[in-house]
Amino acid sequence: MIPSKDTLAEAAERIKSYIHYTPLVTSENLNSIGGCELYFKCENFQKAGAFKSRGACNSLLQLSDKEKQHGVITHSSGNHGGALAKVARHYGVKAYLIMPSTAPRVKVDAVRNYEGEVEFCEPTLEARESNMKRVQKLTGATEIHPYNNDNIIAGQATAAKELIESTEAPLDIIITPVGGGGLLSGTALAAHYYSPSTKIYAGEPIGADDAYHSFREKKWFPSKNPNTIADGLLTSLGSKTFPIVLDYVDDIFRVHDKTTVTAMKLIWERMKIIIEPSAAVPFAAILDNPEAFKNKKVGVILSGGNLDLNDLPWQCD
Amino acid sequence: MIPSKDTLAEAAERIKSYIHYTPLVTSENLNSIGGCELYFKCENFQKAGAFKSRGACNSLLQLSDKEKQHGVITHSSGNHGGALAKVARHYGVKAYLIMPSTAPRVKVDAVRNYEGEVEFCEPTLEARESNMKRVQKLTGATEIHPYNNDNIIAGQATAAKELIESTEAPLDIIITPVGGGGLLSGTALAAHYYSPSTKIYAGEPIGADDAYHSFREKKWFPSKNPNTIADGLLTSLGSKTFPIVLDYVDDIFRVHDKTTVTAMKLIWERMKIIIEPSAAVPFAAILDNPEAFKNKKVGVILSGGNLDLNDLPWQCD
Repeated sequence: MIPSKDTLAEAAERIKSYIHYTPLVTSENLNSIGGCELYFKCENFQKAGAFKSRGACNSLLQLSDKEKQHGVITHSSGNHGGALAKVARHYGVKAYLIMPSTAPRVKVDAVRNYEGEVEFCEPTLEARESNMKRVQKLTGATEIHPYNNDNIIAGQATAAKELIESTEAPLDIIITPVGGGGLLSGTALAAHYYSPSTKIYAGEPIGADDAYHSFREKKWFPSKNPNTIADGLLTSLGSKTFPIVLDYVDDIFRVHDKTTVTAMKLIWERMKIIIEPSAAVPFAAILDNPEAFKNKKVGVILSGGNLDLNDLPWQCD
Repeated sequence: MIPSKDTLAEAAERIKSYIHYTPLVTSENLNSIGGCELYFKCENFQKAGAFKSRGACNSLLQLSDKEKQHGVITHSSGNHGGALAKVARHYGVKAYLIMPSTAPRVKVDAVRNYEGEVEFCEPTLEARESNMKRVQKLTGATEIHPYNNDNIIAGQATAAKELIESTEAPLDIIITPVGGGGLLSGTALAAHYYSPSTKIYAGEPIGADDAYHSFREKKWFPSKNPNTIADGLLTSLGSKTFPIVLDYVDDIFRVHDKTTVTAMKLIWERMKIIIEPSAAVPFAAILDNPEAFKNKKVGVILSGGNLDLNDLPWQCD
């Protein structure tokens, strides 16, 4: 059973006192470069700097009091980890984060800044999962999966719900990035319930194009040795997100990292806002596929703004 | 005669269809770092990326039709030049920009992007002024001075007018950067007319601290060999701005460039917005003088967001 319209509405109501209703911004300059009418939903301004706070909050608030006493746990070291640690602290719940020993300093600091309890392990999925199990056994903490979870999907859907509410005439297209598919499947459901004429597209890095293949061939492919600057999009679709993507998404566009960097720099320069590489992938898809977007009214979810400012991609040129 | 309350109200009305009513943003994180309640007025999101569009628009729209036919001219190569070129193009007026041959590529490109006519000259004030006179003689263009002009001051005042309108209880303090004093004197007048209990402070780079000395000693000092990362704040106060600063400003704080860079990086990291070094000077003053701002309600004008993203100050560390 996919999350219903009521489930999405309840999620929006549940999280609204914690979450920022993020601004929708426009840029004549980028409209002219993209050849379409762009509405950027600024989840880079969301709590903890990413849309992930929506799903994390929606999940945490549905735990029982007893579960809350034992804390929450995840082995996501990216934006989901930070978002979970921050919302857990806000509600007085302990958060355990299993992180690979190779995790960038800036991510470890972010989680510690939100008073999350970090446990390091070897940088393999196996080590992350076995360490998570070990800490769960010791603490009784509940796992909050970064995307393969209905409460997460319903939470992430609220970004597109707001985007749809904030635009007067219906959008022709909404485009998001795709990694594990939490944001994409939530967005597709929100459009299905609140703006059924809107087409749903995703941008995916060509170096991590499992969703593209899974979608095209209607058969699940794992993400194998992903290699992209879009560090939030390395994961594979999950058993909950893949069916929603298959049924409710209209197309997935692949982009080269080079275009993602161009798109990211354009958004920084022209809109004066900071987004991370993963958030630039949808605009990169627009730049690379002008015919698909020409003169359309396009909602773009800028998924997050967390990155190391000492290590920008255009210094590496 | 300083610009009156009516003059400010008329300026706001005159420019409103061109200018963005920029957002006011807050950050719990920066409130906690600054020890006060901060309201950031985002003029980095203004047309042409800086508050300068306000004064340029207010000046241009008061030219006669005949003057408009002959165009406008300035030898400011910074944000005023870009703002003037953009607003001139918008209203079908020709803009001539006298720029030193050493002007950074990114600034020349910005002005050309707005279809301003660039004339290069030797990088001295003398050469800039004599070339301006020469082009004026040829074209009949009207000079729009970057700050020493009542229409400019009244235009820049509208940023603080909006800031005051957007906050419910009165602000205890408004702080701006100071270079030539157009923004500072406009802000001081706006507060005088619309929020008289609000104290007006400025932040100034210690390497270009002419306004600090002029204010303290009540005697005009020129800016001599200024040296600061805040490239928008190199100029001296003018004959129109200095008297307003003397009468309506409460204090000027000097800051080291190092603190400005820290302040700028904090705003980028925590607020996910791009500001230029000059715009970070007021927050640097807050960081350096916590006792003056402690627990106060402080409006901060983020003056602009134009800088070369390939050349960020924290790469030079």
